[in-house]
Amino acid sequence: MPVPEPGPGEVLLKVGGAGACHSDLHLLEVPAGARSFTLPFTLGHENAGWVETMGPGATGFEPGDPVIVYGPWGCGLCMNCRQGIENYCQTPGKPSPGGLGGTDGGMAEYLLVPSTRYLIPLGSLDPREAAPLTDAGLTSYHAVKRSVHLLGPGSTAVVIGAGGLGQMAIQVLKALSSATTVVAIDTSADKLKIANTMGADEELVSGDDAVKQIKDMTHGQGAEVVLDFVGINPTLTMAAQVSRMLGHLTIVGLGNAALPVNFNSPAKECSVASPFWGSIPELIDVIALAQAGKIKMLVEHFPLDSAAEAYRLLHDGKIAGRAVITPND
Amino acid sequence: MPVPEPGPGEVLLKVGGAGACHSDLHLLEVPAGARSFTLPFTLGHENAGWVETMGPGATGFEPGDPVIVYGPWGCGLCMNCRQGIENYCQTPGKPSPGGLGGTDGGMAEYLLVPSTRYLIPLGSLDPREAAPLTDAGLTSYHAVKRSVHLLGPGSTAVVIGAGGLGQMAIQVLKALSSATTVVAIDTSADKLKIANTMGADEELVSGDDAVKQIKDMTHGQGAEVVLDFVGINPTLTMAAQVSRMLGHLTIVGLGNAALPVNFNSPAKECSVASPFWGSIPELIDVIALAQAGKIKMLVEHFPLDSAAEAYRLLHDGKIAGRAVITPND
Amino acid sequence: MPVPEPGPGEVLLKVGGAGACHSDLHLLEVPAGARSFTLPFTLGHENAGWVETMGPGATGFEPGDPVIVYGPWGCGLCMNCRQGIENYCQTPGKPSPGGLGGTDGGMAEYLLVPSTRYLIPLGSLDPREAAPLTDAGLTSYHAVKRSVHLLGPGSTAVVIGAGGLGQMAIQVLKALSSATTVVAIDTSADKLKIANTMGADEELVSGDDAVKQIKDMTHGQGAEVVLDFVGINPTLTMAAQVSRMLGHLTIVGLGNAALPVNFNSPAKECSVASPFWGSIPELIDVIALAQAGKIKMLVEHFPLDSAAEAYRLLHDGKIAGRAVITPND
Amino acid sequence: MPVPEPGPGEVLLKVGGAGACHSDLHLLEVPAGARSFTLPFTLGHENAGWVETMGPGATGFEPGDPVIVYGPWGCGLCMNCRQGIENYCQTPGKPSPGGLGGTDGGMAEYLLVPSTRYLIPLGSLDPREAAPLTDAGLTSYHAVKRSVHLLGPGSTAVVIGAGGLGQMAIQVLKALSSATTVVAIDTSADKLKIANTMGADEELVSGDDAVKQIKDMTHGQGAEVVLDFVGINPTLTMAAQVSRMLGHLTIVGLGNAALPVNFNSPAKECSVASPFWGSIPELIDVIALAQAGKIKMLVEHFPLDSAAEAYRLLHDGKIAGRAVITPND
Repeated sequence: MPVPEPGPGEVLLKVGGAGACHSDLHLLEVPAGARSFTLPFTLGHENAGWVETMGPGATGFEPGDPVIVYGPWGCGLCMNCRQGIENYCQTPGKPSPGGLGGTDGGMAEYLLVPSTRYLIPLGSLDPREAAPLTDAGLTSYHAVKRSVHLLGPGSTAVVIGAGGLGQMAIQVLKALSSATTVVAIDTSADKLKIANTMGADEELVSGDDAVKQIKDMTHGQGAEVVLDFVGINPTLTMAAQVSRMLGHLTIVGLGNAALPVNFNSPAKECSVASPFWGSIPELIDVIALAQAGKIKMLVEHFPLDSAAEAYRLLHDGKIAGRAVITPND
Repeated sequence: MPVPEPGPGEVLLKVGGAGACHSDLHLLEVPAGARSFTLPFTLGHENAGWVETMGPGATGFEPGDPVIVYGPWGCGLCMNCRQGIENYCQTPGKPSPGGLGGTDGGMAEYLLVPSTRYLIPLGSLDPREAAPLTDAGLTSYHAVKRSVHLLGPGSTAVVIGAGGLGQMAIQVLKALSSATTVVAIDTSADKLKIANTMGADEELVSGDDAVKQIKDMTHGQGAEVVLDFVGINPTLTMAAQVSRMLGHLTIVGLGNAALPVNFNSPAKECSVASPFWGSIPELIDVIALAQAGKIKMLVEHFPLDSAAEAYRLLHDGKIAGRAVITPND
Repeated sequence: MPVPEPGPGEVLLKVGGAGACHSDLHLLEVPAGARSFTLPFTLGHENAGWVETMGPGATGFEPGDPVIVYGPWGCGLCMNCRQGIENYCQTPGKPSPGGLGGTDGGMAEYLLVPSTRYLIPLGSLDPREAAPLTDAGLTSYHAVKRSVHLLGPGSTAVVIGAGGLGQMAIQVLKALSSATTVVAIDTSADKLKIANTMGADEELVSGDDAVKQIKDMTHGQGAEVVLDFVGINPTLTMAAQVSRMLGHLTIVGLGNAALPVNFNSPAKECSVASPFWGSIPELIDVIALAQAGKIKMLVEHFPLDSAAEAYRLLHDGKIAGRAVITPND
Repeated sequence: MPVPEPGPGEVLLKVGGAGACHSDLHLLEVPAGARSFTLPFTLGHENAGWVETMGPGATGFEPGDPVIVYGPWGCGLCMNCRQGIENYCQTPGKPSPGGLGGTDGGMAEYLLVPSTRYLIPLGSLDPREAAPLTDAGLTSYHAVKRSVHLLGPGSTAVVIGAGGLGQMAIQVLKALSSATTVVAIDTSADKLKIANTMGADEELVSGDDAVKQIKDMTHGQGAEVVLDFVGINPTLTMAAQVSRMLGHLTIVGLGNAALPVNFNSPAKECSVASPFWGSIPELIDVIALAQAGKIKMLVEHFPLDSAAEAYRLLHDGKIAGRAVITPND
């Protein structure tokens, strides 16, 4: 691969770390006939590194600056993009790196970034450690942020699924409100142990008993905030059962089941929504939390020529936190 | 029936008007074995009238004052009740008048109200006209209020179902934001004509074509706010199809279908919720809007001994707006 | 004094603790000619104790229940009171206990409370320890709560004046957002030491150097939230100098100086406000924080016949936290 | 003047209209020794026109597109700029066109715009008419927007000063909430007549009687929202007197007096702030309101070689609405 030359306003990034994500596995498995994109292209939408070259007219960064790359690239000119909410760009068909649009991502030595507005300074954070903050970190942060006004004194937040994103959500909940009781639910005792080290106040094994305990703990009211990072029928059912009047139930997991909403369930006027990724200002917040030591992601590093192995381990559930490819190590 | 004597803190109301509601029909049809309440009791949860007697210790009103009665009576001491949100009282089993709890309602000459906090002064409004504002008016207002921050310049609100509540919602939308385009959808051309007189900017007949027109009108984005006052499968499907990223989809109608929510539908991070009635401060707002002439409900009056007939007409769909029983006329 | 008999809806409280407040000293010093109230009356607006007798029609509590008493008693029927915001009652002339209206307060064996809506259950908290939470605690909590949406990652909050209320504000800030850096400013090194034990991240001695350090710490931007618990010219000047664009500057201290606001100062669109006390729902939050061990007030107890001595020590600045009279010990 | 060549990411605009603003007069009057900028430079910060040439890498517009230019140009990379809030850019020293930084403005045939993010499509609006919307329109809109949640049923908004900005504020208030009563105050009967045609519900001549009438109209409570577009001592005093507990008092006028804020005045917890201009998303809203015919500015046109005359008339108070220079007519 030749090193790309940044055009006007563009920035060339020397990749420090590119996270391997479950969603990449889905891309790899799309059958040839169903592809909306052209092969080959480079995977990697969780990227961080160092500015290598600034294209003509690009300002605000210097070569060598450590930065993280915001992932969902929008049009920049619609109402949402104008507020840094490019995850909800209103112009269809905008390509993001390493994604369905077939634009090259970060699993290469260099990544071409179309605008400085996608770069957030990392300061003292190491790009190889920080890379997953831009997806796993930001997605969790955004899901929590939507409900932050509900996390007052005496409140309860339930995190269903204590994998990579759930672990991050637990940390974010404790960082944004130390007044909230955080309950983690999972089927795996090991993951619940990790949840505890991440700051969860209670850890419960999935099932009817977990529902009963949350009801007891909340005097029958249910939890103000319920975050489902799994999204299959059993977790959505639990989520509805522990929801609370005027609360929030947020579906992040792509388990592909759907939660039926009407007057009878979930709790009355509980707001149900399924968000996607997060905004640029929120990524700045995520980096601030990481710099302050409030959130941290478990990371395993792999050189570029071991990327296939990283995906194999990911597929087999053998990556505890996040696998990060380090193309320049 | 003997005239009740108000106890400490209670108020005796001389009933001016008591609205007949579809939900009363449901109560009347509950089979004997399935009843959670004891018969007989008096129907009527949409009540307005004049203060007759103040019980010991009750202050703030004078005999003769015209007032409307807030309907969902809570415990008064939970976090929600303390904010006037008694529709979401957190203490189970609190009886409201004329409802499932079997407490006597307003279809009688007098109604016993347990506290002055359920009374809102009507000023120059006639209790016989105003009565439906406390349910049909308040329920619609509350449903709109949840989304009022989304009704900015260039926004679109869709009201599905232009019956009594939908008509009220159209008026409330225009009163709260003249910058919003209000679209009414119904299967009935007659109701769409009424919607137009209520202030709707566009009226569309239910179906795929309505969805297409809303998409066109909103440049493919969908509507910021969608209110479904029907709640059956075809309306919920339309609602999801015209929803917008970061918008609101509110299910008011008790059609008993349910809307499936996940990453694929409705639009991303659209908040779906099914509210119940409204709060005391919101009822004050509703009365202020009616006093200012911004909202008005079509009302037909029936004397107390014609109540059965009123319900029959209601059941047969022959009441255009709202039937109100006037026990003291 | 005879034991009062509670009328309809009223509650008789056996007083556990009644806090002595600086504002009481002001009342005591009003010259005879300038009094708007009739002497004698009982001081004490920071009251907690146990329910002794429930008046006719009063429900929801049992004799012996430990409760704290909300202080600013309003009309109960205006828009603000209907939401539990009785500190901003819109009906003039409503008397609060132990205050300017000349209504008897809590420095007696018994206190007559006009409604159960002023009682918040204390659960396992001791009324003798908890009493100051209803004024010193609630006033600080309310001042912080107004700005809680500004306390995100990377934010800074400045507390000027680390006396009783300032100490409480520091604890509340840390409880509501562990992501905020809290800076305490005072003229007294001793108080700054206490501020540190309360959770402050930085302690600075009042003056130009404090301003400079906050500017440096915030990259020249100033602090998102500035709370002035003193309210004299030097503190208000500092407050304006460390304020931030779009931030909040809240004046709680009654030093009686005033902050001039225009385009030049404080920072652009910084919202300046001077609040009074707090709401009933907020007092429920304060009690929840105390029950969770997140906030705690330093308290010294005095029997009723030593009340005069308590005020003398208070006047001489010799009470570290709060003096509480315990009439039934 | 040679026609400038747009560099990477830049856009060359053919100027349709450039508004003449009172603040330009201030610039013109700065004595030579006190200037922070280098002469000569071109005035004009209220600009609209047509895209002439897109610089390399600039996308999203076509030559000939009618656009309006957002005025306060920030760094684009701080937290505020990332949300389109460049009026509150956190990086000092960023130059805006035609302003204190000495960057050329729009009173010329062509204007060089540094980024497409400053361009908002005008659609069917004429740039010669629309130009003042980007300052006079946006500043008023922003001032109202800060308080839009207070403009519910039964609320009152007071606009002090019915000149260009005040007239716009009246229209915006009515567009955003038809439920609010809008009161205009001015010393000039002529301006009050214009205020009436703009939609004001009441017009009052400045003074103690105006204060009394507003108090009467609001049952002694004062107005939820008070906007002072003058900013001299008499108007600020009136503003404080008609303010309301928990209301907003917004100082837009640069009369250079200051409002003293403490516990005694204005009303308790009334939020006082002095904003500057508005954000990019808000300018999109302003254009949407103008396209919908909800707001309109009175405009007088002058060719470029009559600019000096336009400023003379402006200085002498002889421009009713806004003077707009049309360099290409």
